[in-house]
Amino acid sequence: MNNEAKFSSVHYNTYLQVDKITSAQHLRSTEVGEAAHDEMLFIITHQVYELWFKQINFELRAIISDFSARNVNEKNVGIAVSRLERIIEIMKLLVQQIRIMETMTPLDFLDFRNYLFPASGFQSLQFREMEVMLGLKEDMRTTYNNKPYHCVFSETGREKLEGLEKGNSLLDLVEDWLERTPFLEFGDFNFVAEYQKAVKAMIGKEQAAIMGTDILSEETKQMRLALLGDTNSYFAGIMDENRHNTLVREGKLKLSYKATLAALFIHLYRDEPILHQPFRLLSKLVEIDDQLTTWRYRHAQMVMRMLGKKVGTGGSSGHEYLAVTAARHHIFSDFHNVSTLLIPRSELPVLPEVFRKNLGFYFSAANT
Amino acid sequence: MNNEAKFSSVHYNTYLQVDKITSAQHLRSTEVGEAAHDEMLFIITHQVYELWFKQINFELRAIISDFSARNVNEKNVGIAVSRLERIIEIMKLLVQQIRIMETMTPLDFLDFRNYLFPASGFQSLQFREMEVMLGLKEDMRTTYNNKPYHCVFSETGREKLEGLEKGNSLLDLVEDWLERTPFLEFGDFNFVAEYQKAVKAMIGKEQAAIMGTDILSEETKQMRLALLGDTNSYFAGIMDENRHNTLVREGKLKLSYKATLAALFIHLYRDEPILHQPFRLLSKLVEIDDQLTTWRYRHAQMVMRMLGKKVGTGGSSGHEYLAVTAARHHIFSDFHNVSTLLIPRSELPVLPEVFRKNLGFYFSAANT
Amino acid sequence: MNNEAKFSSVHYNTYLQVDKITSAQHLRSTEVGEAAHDEMLFIITHQVYELWFKQINFELRAIISDFSARNVNEKNVGIAVSRLERIIEIMKLLVQQIRIMETMTPLDFLDFRNYLFPASGFQSLQFREMEVMLGLKEDMRTTYNNKPYHCVFSETGREKLEGLEKGNSLLDLVEDWLERTPFLEFGDFNFVAEYQKAVKAMIGKEQAAIMGTDILSEETKQMRLALLGDTNSYFAGIMDENRHNTLVREGKLKLSYKATLAALFIHLYRDEPILHQPFRLLSKLVEIDDQLTTWRYRHAQMVMRMLGKKVGTGGSSGHEYLAVTAARHHIFSDFHNVSTLLIPRSELPVLPEVFRKNLGFYFSAANT
Amino acid sequence: MNNEAKFSSVHYNTYLQVDKITSAQHLRSTEVGEAAHDEMLFIITHQVYELWFKQINFELRAIISDFSARNVNEKNVGIAVSRLERIIEIMKLLVQQIRIMETMTPLDFLDFRNYLFPASGFQSLQFREMEVMLGLKEDMRTTYNNKPYHCVFSETGREKLEGLEKGNSLLDLVEDWLERTPFLEFGDFNFVAEYQKAVKAMIGKEQAAIMGTDILSEETKQMRLALLGDTNSYFAGIMDENRHNTLVREGKLKLSYKATLAALFIHLYRDEPILHQPFRLLSKLVEIDDQLTTWRYRHAQMVMRMLGKKVGTGGSSGHEYLAVTAARHHIFSDFHNVSTLLIPRSELPVLPEVFRKNLGFYFSAANT
Repeated sequence: MNNEAKFSSVHYNTYLQVDKITSAQHLRSTEVGEAAHDEMLFIITHQVYELWFKQINFELRAIISDFSARNVNEKNVGIAVSRLERIIEIMKLLVQQIRIMETMTPLDFLDFRNYLFPASGFQSLQFREMEVMLGLKEDMRTTYNNKPYHCVFSETGREKLEGLEKGNSLLDLVEDWLERTPFLEFGDFNFVAEYQKAVKAMIGKEQAAIMGTDILSEETKQMRLALLGDTNSYFAGIMDENRHNTLVREGKLKLSYKATLAALFIHLYRDEPILHQPFRLLSKLVEIDDQLTTWRYRHAQMVMRMLGKKVGTGGSSGHEYLAVTAARHHIFSDFHNVSTLLIPRSELPVLPEVFRKNLGFYFSAANT
Repeated sequence: MNNEAKFSSVHYNTYLQVDKITSAQHLRSTEVGEAAHDEMLFIITHQVYELWFKQINFELRAIISDFSARNVNEKNVGIAVSRLERIIEIMKLLVQQIRIMETMTPLDFLDFRNYLFPASGFQSLQFREMEVMLGLKEDMRTTYNNKPYHCVFSETGREKLEGLEKGNSLLDLVEDWLERTPFLEFGDFNFVAEYQKAVKAMIGKEQAAIMGTDILSEETKQMRLALLGDTNSYFAGIMDENRHNTLVREGKLKLSYKATLAALFIHLYRDEPILHQPFRLLSKLVEIDDQLTTWRYRHAQMVMRMLGKKVGTGGSSGHEYLAVTAARHHIFSDFHNVSTLLIPRSELPVLPEVFRKNLGFYFSAANT
Repeated sequence: MNNEAKFSSVHYNTYLQVDKITSAQHLRSTEVGEAAHDEMLFIITHQVYELWFKQINFELRAIISDFSARNVNEKNVGIAVSRLERIIEIMKLLVQQIRIMETMTPLDFLDFRNYLFPASGFQSLQFREMEVMLGLKEDMRTTYNNKPYHCVFSETGREKLEGLEKGNSLLDLVEDWLERTPFLEFGDFNFVAEYQKAVKAMIGKEQAAIMGTDILSEETKQMRLALLGDTNSYFAGIMDENRHNTLVREGKLKLSYKATLAALFIHLYRDEPILHQPFRLLSKLVEIDDQLTTWRYRHAQMVMRMLGKKVGTGGSSGHEYLAVTAARHHIFSDFHNVSTLLIPRSELPVLPEVFRKNLGFYFSAANT
Repeated sequence: MNNEAKFSSVHYNTYLQVDKITSAQHLRSTEVGEAAHDEMLFIITHQVYELWFKQINFELRAIISDFSARNVNEKNVGIAVSRLERIIEIMKLLVQQIRIMETMTPLDFLDFRNYLFPASGFQSLQFREMEVMLGLKEDMRTTYNNKPYHCVFSETGREKLEGLEKGNSLLDLVEDWLERTPFLEFGDFNFVAEYQKAVKAMIGKEQAAIMGTDILSEETKQMRLALLGDTNSYFAGIMDENRHNTLVREGKLKLSYKATLAALFIHLYRDEPILHQPFRLLSKLVEIDDQLTTWRYRHAQMVMRMLGKKVGTGGSSGHEYLAVTAARHHIFSDFHNVSTLLIPRSELPVLPEVFRKNLGFYFSAANT
């Protein structure tokens, strides 16, 4: 510990570099034509976005670093959950922040819009880094003006993105971690076999009940059967590993069969102590996807309101591009889809006692 | 004034009919099987939605009534704006409220989901009334299970909807009101002619500047020209009434040529006193569209998270239906599109002094 | 399972009792004088509050029931956390909802305010039940018009409240649960002794460093020492059980010495697996206090905006009463105060290995 | 117009000075001791606050400049309203943003808190500039550590604040503008005389009705009379100019008698076209006060949660100081209090026709 540094006096202004931050707004309109009042808002709003992107990426790097370990420490799962919760709170704010930009009317924007060519939000390097770190792969991306998304960056920028793309994303690391779960086969208990049995039993029983009652019309029976699903539809992939792998190869699924099983196990038995944090982790990933998507969607709305059908300064229809990314750039959709595979608690395979003990705390086991 | 009634004592509990409201939750799970804790949340959340729908519809009916007058009182335009602002605040809350429903996990939902068949949010009559009063026509609707949207209602319900559909919607009435604006031709000033001239002058000047500079590459020049637009693209409809009418016939536009001109005039000269409230009115309509669409979108996300790819209790993919309505069921999109037609303030036709006087206050004119 | 009931067809409208809910708005202004448009908003907003209060109380009762067990099941701690999170989400919405009421202006309120006498929000039984279940005792309450808070209720209402007051509140039960924690003395490890030692060592070391440096002025040294605190100030109560008990007797603290120690232990070692959920539980209680207080505060602001200094329909200054309750009616403040007692991680007593093992999972211990 | 500058290519990164902004985070913990992960969040959150303060102050300066004109242009009143609405949207976000800071736990804060001494939020110059520009005078301020609030700034900072304090604040300028309203005496119509007459008539009539009915108990009659108010209580100041002036001298009111009358007139007749924007202006000022106060309050809550009863790095109890400022640093409270003076629409003095004409649009008057 360095006492001299430690005891040196700190002022809010120098510590936070307030002068640097607040002197970084240079209005193009002042330079090129007539000062446009609302350009200040435009600049500051975007700068705030960039500051938050820095914070999000800082958290993501820390999580990725912890999950890159061969054995992810239990403590680190808890810490990762806290960091994801922080990212979610920030993303909620990013969505709210769109309302501030919307206080600028389309006519006010026209006062300086022409001076910004060809600058565009597509040139935010930090946003792309965030997407890549979360797990958005280049082949999942909608192209923009038929060019790879990183063509708008400098060489340093492109190299940075390529470096991140070669490394492990959060999605990759969570998949690895799920695949390593020791609980899918535990002693005599084989989770997938038991689960498949339970699904078949449940569907069979319900089908029989529906077909056997006489208070339902034929049409209603058919609707109820559809609602119930069958082993050839919702549950097909999880019933058949080969089929799952085919869907992965076709790009329809991202998550491996084994990781999907682990995610399903965690959802079904989430009340067991050792699964509390893993369940929260998966839930937070789904929420990040939802928040990011909401942001893209609200952003698209705002662009629509601002420009109508005009082309954006980046040279293409910003509104359409953003609307398409909102619909397609989902990163953790396979975790959403675990919901498809769930069955009611009353139908769940019962875990053997010795297995449950291993999902609980040492103290509890030692004191009962 | 009835003094006896006026002075009778009022208690919070009877005034608000609290007992009636709070005794209206009957859990199907308790009746049919085992009590499912989260069914209470499911019921109450939906009931809160219905109470807010009642309030929104109450406001809409009042606005529609005021705008049904042959001459809309200026005071009533101001009041309509306040009521639309209230509707917007409520809609913002409806979006936030989805977070509460999301505290129910998919597994918890499965505990009672089977008991709800075939109930579905599509059966909310008040929601349909709201859509119809705002201006959503049946031919603009995505069909659901290939049936007309009102087939899920009782005869009384269907009649109510048909009655509303025959009457004037808010969109219809605002269109009429816009068409009646006296300002499109005022003395010697013909707005559309002046505006068309200004657009042509602006585009010509900018095109010349772009073509004439030697600091831009050929490719950049082409991009800048595209960004600028031309009289054959963005401005085409407004330059040519026939073309506009064709688009209306083809269902690509809803708003008449004249109403569109009026909306454009209001946007361009919104700082003139007499246009303050009309401009705010149009802005609020756009915001209602955006809020309603955001709600549909977040609702779709929630259903996706809850059910994955499972079919909803209503018998179809709720998620897909909602996502499609979020993308298509826009009611006031033609007001969004006015943004396409805007030109910078510096290029606007200057209004003759006598005209400006008529857009101002009597007091100001009389005292200068 | 009753197949007939199970397969009976359910309609949204009957299931949610929509007609009952939406026919429970009866405007006094219509009956007594002239219809006041905004009275509908006034009624519906309060009814929505009551519906949410019902949901909050439903969750509270479930948590209280689970925590009334002699040994609170670990699974139930997790479930309680989820339910508290749900209550928090609802409370956030209740705060937002004030914005909707604020769309009514003071002048609009005057159109029907006179007809409501003497109804008042103080007459909401469900709100009082919520306060009592959380743990607000009568002697902690600010009196209103110098009368006990329950004098505004019917006999049934008063009995209900008295019944709840006699039973255990959430605060009582959490205190009991904390007192039962087995970890304050574990084998040779005595938490309070080790913690007191650590505090003294930390303070001594820092004091020496401050006094010993020559880069600080005398004044700055004194300020730094104050910031550091000493064993006679912040840490005094926890250093001396008698002193703590005196503060409890004087009504300055609510939580027993032992429960306070347990809460401190949980905060300091929250990263150990067995403490994850207990830490979250305590954090959620603090957040509930903060949300409830924010709601009281915003409510006071709204009343101020609506009435200025006028007396409320209940017969006293609503604004002042609410502002005072926002400042004083804190239920879980002793958990806020645990922050006073925290010391940096680097100064924490190290837990013996055998103890840490008991704070972890059985599986982890068995496999290392 | 400078074509070379205009056509120069703009990149997002350089335009927004992203590198400058995102390289302004320097962790004290890294320099002085061990890197504390959460210090990044602490820095970035505060920097975002400073960026928004810059935007708020930019808007305030523009409004102050427009209102410094001898005759405030009607157009500029409308623009001021838009800018105040923008400030309100930003302030709402500042309140939300506290949730992000709350993702840092007290224990995490302790990892670097010691290194920040004596930095403190009290040293934010921009925040003080904002308060001064809005209208917070030094003698309205709670002192902090018994020193004038500007002692923590450098000489340049203090001079900046003194300059602002000497100039006109928004409150000063709005007061001037209200005093200049031409409508308090218009022809034969003297607003204050008519209003006083109406108040007396209303109170007399209601008192007679209350006293004359036999369905009310004596106690209830007294409560109803209190609720009604009398000319010696709520309405006393406005009935008696001298009394109002005494309250101003005693510091209990800020707004002059004449400005108060004008504010009252605007509230009562806000539906007249020429009063639309003035009414909205006054409402927005009240909302800014409420938002700023809410922020102070939530900030106090957060500090309490973070530090408990510990002293802040600035050397005093941050929580208490903030709670006191939330309760006292109201700037526009006299506009809140106008609500005290309102009477129901049905009791309002009727405006002479020629007067109403002058409150309307020229076009409407000329065409009827």
